[in-house]
Amino acid sequence: MMNPHVLEEEKVFKDPIHKYIYVQDQMIWDLINTREFQRLRRIRQLGTSYLTFHGAEHSRFSHSLGVYEITRKIISQFERGGYSDWPREERMVALCAALLHDIGHGPFSHSIEEVFDTNHEDWTCRILLESTEINQILHNYDPSFPERIAAVIRKTYDKPIVISLVSSQMDADRMDYLLRDAYYTGVNYGTFDLDRILRVLRPHQERIVVKESGMHAVEDYLMSRYQMYWQVYFHPVTRSSEIILRQIFRRAKELYGGNYTFSWMIKPFQDLFEGTLDVKSYTLLDEALVQTVFSQWMNESDELLSDLCERFLNRRLYKYVTLDDAEEGLWDEISDQFLSIGLRPDYHLEIDFPYDLPYDVYRSGSPASSHGKEEKPPILLLDKENRLSEISERSDIIRSITGLHQGKYHLYYPEEPLIESAHKLKPHIRELFGLL
Amino acid sequence: MMNPHVLEEEKVFKDPIHKYIYVQDQMIWDLINTREFQRLRRIRQLGTSYLTFHGAEHSRFSHSLGVYEITRKIISQFERGGYSDWPREERMVALCAALLHDIGHGPFSHSIEEVFDTNHEDWTCRILLESTEINQILHNYDPSFPERIAAVIRKTYDKPIVISLVSSQMDADRMDYLLRDAYYTGVNYGTFDLDRILRVLRPHQERIVVKESGMHAVEDYLMSRYQMYWQVYFHPVTRSSEIILRQIFRRAKELYGGNYTFSWMIKPFQDLFEGTLDVKSYTLLDEALVQTVFSQWMNESDELLSDLCERFLNRRLYKYVTLDDAEEGLWDEISDQFLSIGLRPDYHLEIDFPYDLPYDVYRSGSPASSHGKEEKPPILLLDKENRLSEISERSDIIRSITGLHQGKYHLYYPEEPLIESAHKLKPHIRELFGLL
Amino acid sequence: MMNPHVLEEEKVFKDPIHKYIYVQDQMIWDLINTREFQRLRRIRQLGTSYLTFHGAEHSRFSHSLGVYEITRKIISQFERGGYSDWPREERMVALCAALLHDIGHGPFSHSIEEVFDTNHEDWTCRILLESTEINQILHNYDPSFPERIAAVIRKTYDKPIVISLVSSQMDADRMDYLLRDAYYTGVNYGTFDLDRILRVLRPHQERIVVKESGMHAVEDYLMSRYQMYWQVYFHPVTRSSEIILRQIFRRAKELYGGNYTFSWMIKPFQDLFEGTLDVKSYTLLDEALVQTVFSQWMNESDELLSDLCERFLNRRLYKYVTLDDAEEGLWDEISDQFLSIGLRPDYHLEIDFPYDLPYDVYRSGSPASSHGKEEKPPILLLDKENRLSEISERSDIIRSITGLHQGKYHLYYPEEPLIESAHKLKPHIRELFGLL
Amino acid sequence: MMNPHVLEEEKVFKDPIHKYIYVQDQMIWDLINTREFQRLRRIRQLGTSYLTFHGAEHSRFSHSLGVYEITRKIISQFERGGYSDWPREERMVALCAALLHDIGHGPFSHSIEEVFDTNHEDWTCRILLESTEINQILHNYDPSFPERIAAVIRKTYDKPIVISLVSSQMDADRMDYLLRDAYYTGVNYGTFDLDRILRVLRPHQERIVVKESGMHAVEDYLMSRYQMYWQVYFHPVTRSSEIILRQIFRRAKELYGGNYTFSWMIKPFQDLFEGTLDVKSYTLLDEALVQTVFSQWMNESDELLSDLCERFLNRRLYKYVTLDDAEEGLWDEISDQFLSIGLRPDYHLEIDFPYDLPYDVYRSGSPASSHGKEEKPPILLLDKENRLSEISERSDIIRSITGLHQGKYHLYYPEEPLIESAHKLKPHIRELFGLL
Repeated sequence: MMNPHVLEEEKVFKDPIHKYIYVQDQMIWDLINTREFQRLRRIRQLGTSYLTFHGAEHSRFSHSLGVYEITRKIISQFERGGYSDWPREERMVALCAALLHDIGHGPFSHSIEEVFDTNHEDWTCRILLESTEINQILHNYDPSFPERIAAVIRKTYDKPIVISLVSSQMDADRMDYLLRDAYYTGVNYGTFDLDRILRVLRPHQERIVVKESGMHAVEDYLMSRYQMYWQVYFHPVTRSSEIILRQIFRRAKELYGGNYTFSWMIKPFQDLFEGTLDVKSYTLLDEALVQTVFSQWMNESDELLSDLCERFLNRRLYKYVTLDDAEEGLWDEISDQFLSIGLRPDYHLEIDFPYDLPYDVYRSGSPASSHGKEEKPPILLLDKENRLSEISERSDIIRSITGLHQGKYHLYYPEEPLIESAHKLKPHIRELFGLL
Repeated sequence: MMNPHVLEEEKVFKDPIHKYIYVQDQMIWDLINTREFQRLRRIRQLGTSYLTFHGAEHSRFSHSLGVYEITRKIISQFERGGYSDWPREERMVALCAALLHDIGHGPFSHSIEEVFDTNHEDWTCRILLESTEINQILHNYDPSFPERIAAVIRKTYDKPIVISLVSSQMDADRMDYLLRDAYYTGVNYGTFDLDRILRVLRPHQERIVVKESGMHAVEDYLMSRYQMYWQVYFHPVTRSSEIILRQIFRRAKELYGGNYTFSWMIKPFQDLFEGTLDVKSYTLLDEALVQTVFSQWMNESDELLSDLCERFLNRRLYKYVTLDDAEEGLWDEISDQFLSIGLRPDYHLEIDFPYDLPYDVYRSGSPASSHGKEEKPPILLLDKENRLSEISERSDIIRSITGLHQGKYHLYYPEEPLIESAHKLKPHIRELFGLL
Repeated sequence: MMNPHVLEEEKVFKDPIHKYIYVQDQMIWDLINTREFQRLRRIRQLGTSYLTFHGAEHSRFSHSLGVYEITRKIISQFERGGYSDWPREERMVALCAALLHDIGHGPFSHSIEEVFDTNHEDWTCRILLESTEINQILHNYDPSFPERIAAVIRKTYDKPIVISLVSSQMDADRMDYLLRDAYYTGVNYGTFDLDRILRVLRPHQERIVVKESGMHAVEDYLMSRYQMYWQVYFHPVTRSSEIILRQIFRRAKELYGGNYTFSWMIKPFQDLFEGTLDVKSYTLLDEALVQTVFSQWMNESDELLSDLCERFLNRRLYKYVTLDDAEEGLWDEISDQFLSIGLRPDYHLEIDFPYDLPYDVYRSGSPASSHGKEEKPPILLLDKENRLSEISERSDIIRSITGLHQGKYHLYYPEEPLIESAHKLKPHIRELFGLL
Repeated sequence: MMNPHVLEEEKVFKDPIHKYIYVQDQMIWDLINTREFQRLRRIRQLGTSYLTFHGAEHSRFSHSLGVYEITRKIISQFERGGYSDWPREERMVALCAALLHDIGHGPFSHSIEEVFDTNHEDWTCRILLESTEINQILHNYDPSFPERIAAVIRKTYDKPIVISLVSSQMDADRMDYLLRDAYYTGVNYGTFDLDRILRVLRPHQERIVVKESGMHAVEDYLMSRYQMYWQVYFHPVTRSSEIILRQIFRRAKELYGGNYTFSWMIKPFQDLFEGTLDVKSYTLLDEALVQTVFSQWMNESDELLSDLCERFLNRRLYKYVTLDDAEEGLWDEISDQFLSIGLRPDYHLEIDFPYDLPYDVYRSGSPASSHGKEEKPPILLLDKENRLSEISERSDIIRSITGLHQGKYHLYYPEEPLIESAHKLKPHIRELFGLL
């Protein structure tokens, strides 16, 4: 008799990164076809990076399939190898967690999360656990599944090896996004030898570790990550577009909380401002909606808001100058000067230091970063005598980038008003902004 | 003294297809930064194909830069070669036409154009000629430019060689989209040797022709086109999503013209229904807006409209069965059966034959296709004695695909209601739809 | 207990085409390490093509591993699919035949075979059956193996499906060489989607057939083959180097049979001339030896031989002119004129028509080609109702290239003496050779 | 009138790395067609590495064309940029030096140079300066050219910028070989963004420097180099084949100097042993000859020599064990044990430490390495204020790999005799060699 959980005929998706993505299980196929998963097509993987790298228009839908596929390949290699340390009964949990790990991402997550103090991991768990198509499919398969997948996402699942597949220093998530983002941006720094890495992963006790002979492949992977951070993820132009985005949300929230009346509003945004988003309205929030809202708000009477929206949609971003350090005195002086020419430092001036971002090229040892992010398990090498060692103890290269401090301060501002009023600024401020 | 038209420092865009896109002229840079050009970021190059090939999320913005870059490379090769048949003073006209040739595309152009009887080439010309940022930049450079670029688009420009760069059987447009669509879908059939083709193009009299030694490279390019048509552009799943889209527009137009009151409407759509779109409101139409509208319309009380919108957004497409031919008797019978189970043949049943599409893999000789599309100039080979011959006279391969008839009829329909009411259908109709 | 035939740990070879080549069986590993197989490192896959495409320096060793790997992948897909038409017990026979199918190739096979009337398939069988390291390993595994592998090579094996893996219109041999030759020459026409093709192959009755849905992938593969033939394999410069090579062998054979005494000779060549090659001395013939012999023969007192050797080693090839047809009268006249300026038409003049080569882009139906080459089984499509059809009945593209006649006559000759004595030639002969 | 130095029509070579290699100058074309340059086709770029990476069968011919092409591109970018620091009149000197920099390489250079104390740079200069086809072409162009090119090779040329094109920490030589070796081995660690690097190079004073904005691209290039060294160039299996090769030369030299009579000998080898090689006989030494000699020597009566030759040709290499350090006591003990079972430590035992190789991943500052290799000029960054800084001062990554010590001791030995006599060895020696 047929196993009702296995598709009669394997389904495939054509994918530029993995050539094909293979689906063999009915549940995986059903999850992909839910409205919550299809919504990921309307959320870009790299947020505003497409304004810097025009090719980076790929969605979280593509990436989620990719994470699933890498996880499937790892597990399938574990099963072929017959390693006793891999708990075979966890296969479906791991595949679902891989596929769904980003299901709670909202449009331009970072900015929205910062301004409205929400968290995409919480939303992922709510989508898994509350009344959704995804929840129903998981529950029908096994009533314990929604809670188990959520536990993997929250990193509280009692099989750490499953967590480490989806969330560790070298997990399926990172491997897919590095390759995918490199492909779509056209920046070839992110390329590393995925096949080689998959070949050297081993389940060992409760972790996934790397055969010692794969050390150089891991070095290469970590260097790719390092390069992608500096070339793509921290690109100062992308940072500028994120700043604009955040200012829009901040301003709209401020206006909404004040006595301003929007000439145009739409329900999911109202819920967002009111703090009354539920799963149903949250999943209506997508980047199509955000762009439409901004397009309408270009007509708002609040000039600050309409200007910011216009800047975002038509890509008239803030410029930046580079500062070696960020003394407070200088900052105050610039603020004063901005005020004196009618600019608002709270919206027209922003200092940015990329190190404040979740910079995780590779850190080890520290129990938790200073920014409250919990630590990802480190990468361990397994030698022929079955001894483990942390990779940065073995590799000079990796040690050298572990905890590397880099980056400069960037001061972002709108260029046009500064040029117009340049003559009113003090000479050294003019010079700082390159206005001669 | 500096030439004010030349950028002090060349600008580059990182591009996955051409590695880099080089901008040397101030005007090109300014055109890219207009709101009309930035809007192309919100219009996908391949319309609904991303529902079939998840990677195909790239925009007309990327493609337009690519067409510009290929044109720039061809011209630069002509200039280096010192060919007297290339009119050097036309460089900027050609570059602008290449960059802007798609500026009038609306969201999901094919469907909207069909239902509302508009035409993206007309809109391109209006954007060039009416009050827009693009018009202003062109006009400032040279008052004759808006009209000249429009003439190239309309194929009435008095230098046919400029037209053929942007619009011929082997133009910069096609070369970029084949490579780009192949890259983003991950389908590698579209790959051909662009470098080789660029090396063998020659300006000759009023045309661009191909050195005889490049014949095999052209064969390869045409085969790529042939393959991309059948593998990607005519893919039956993509056709299904286009059918849904067209039905949504048809239904909404019908409702708007009747006495239905929409519970949610937005201005550019009202203008579209009223036929009062001007350039300003047209350029507000983008795919973000369309998706937001559909998302809202999922709540409309008209069940047909809300069902169609839900189908589109959540990718619950119509299924299809393949018919060898399309006899009218059968069609009537199916329609009757659909009516008998409460379906509406005008919305729930559609027959599709890909050959009705602008199928231009390669045709030559015919003065005009039966669908009123004007003919693109054919590809000419130039031999060492400076004689020209049409390529299909020389290549058996190309002759074999010239005017090739292919494709089968596909009958599209919603699957769920048919399954539910299968027992009410006649046996041979049930069999036709695979319902046993 | 361990299976002694299975390697304790899988071995891998890094390969540019397949990324990795996987060896799981002890016998495959042992066969690769024999002196007969290692000898393939000293025989180039593409003979003299490296004189036209400098990158084409790859050996039959690499290609043989590749054919093995593709065969391994096909079989592994058959086994995973659980198809009953695949005889699982034939796995090792197929893998050995794939690995060893080229083991009998000599240096620059085509030329040597033509001049000395030998045949690499015969040598392959002798290496399998006589006293060699390969024979011993096969025999130790199973005494019937040498004979069974030889039967596959001779196409007399009683399981035709095994033969078709290694020798058919779409076998592992062709798939590897097209991809590999394209990669090493840098000519990207030869690329097709191997993964896709492997996915659509099915064992069916006694053959390997293609699922109907893979038709376009097969079209693409055949077009690649067509392009590679015209761009690479029939390249007129490569043809020139093969002519030189053949002339060297012809001249040396003639001298050896006459009363000329070579100032330098080496045993395997003596055996070749005497017709007394046995397996032992045959396997000493490799391209290193041939080049060393030619290098020594540059000092022979026979000017014809020393000139030809010098031409080959220092790449001073014959030039060619293209003729539309080959009338006998003209030929005689050219011969006379060559004689009149001291050239020898039998060595200094050669007409070449690529169609005389084993041109097998795709033919079907004909019982045997006019050149005595037996027919390869055609490519069959399998539809959903399990009906078979020959692919050229279904594909216009393939029908168009089936039996396509192409090519022009090329007349090869040494340029320098013709230039020197141009004034002595009749005007129309001078014109024919471009000497003004 | 035509410039006789410029080809009427540009010539191209198809190349897998650079797509095409362009030749515009008559002299470059003529140099490529000399017998000395064509000889490079018979010398592999990576020596014995093809025994580890079967794809690495490419020759110094291909690489030399590649170095020429990168140099041509750099110069062409300098000329387009109009930088006054580039001495335009040096173009041909630089191109010739790039093309010819490896012309003096012998077969398997490292081993031969070590045993016979020759030096390929000396031979390069002799080929440039003595009576050769290359010398004649250079001299005809300009009588000072042979000497000038030789000065570039010797790094004594009075325009240091020309030297640094061909020989510096980031020269055309390295850029080509990293990309080419990565391509042919199939190891993708060596890939870096050549286009990007070419875009950021600038002539500055007497050097070639890198625009500051290119720092990450240089990091990536240096990391590729680092990875290629550890993955490919220092691969322990390649080291084993080099050891065998060196032992063959050592043994043959020893026998030749003793009273042994070779049953087979050939002139260029005799000259090599006698130390009487002149340019004429040196250029007859190629890898075809070496392999033929070894093939003949498999029949020599000296068992050591014939065994070593057989090992090399049939790839029966020495195995190795890894030692953490190399204490002398242990070494003596192993030697004694080897002697006791009839092995010769001077031929059957070799300790290898890769760090002894010319390890130049990146060093700076040290006036000269301890191995007498002169220092390559370091990589300098040029900031917007035209200030220079050495790159390792700016990049943590590069600083981390500067002068990195790595590698372990490997002890090489023939496995078979050890297995046979294992029972005669002391237990801890048995254990060291993994013989239980």
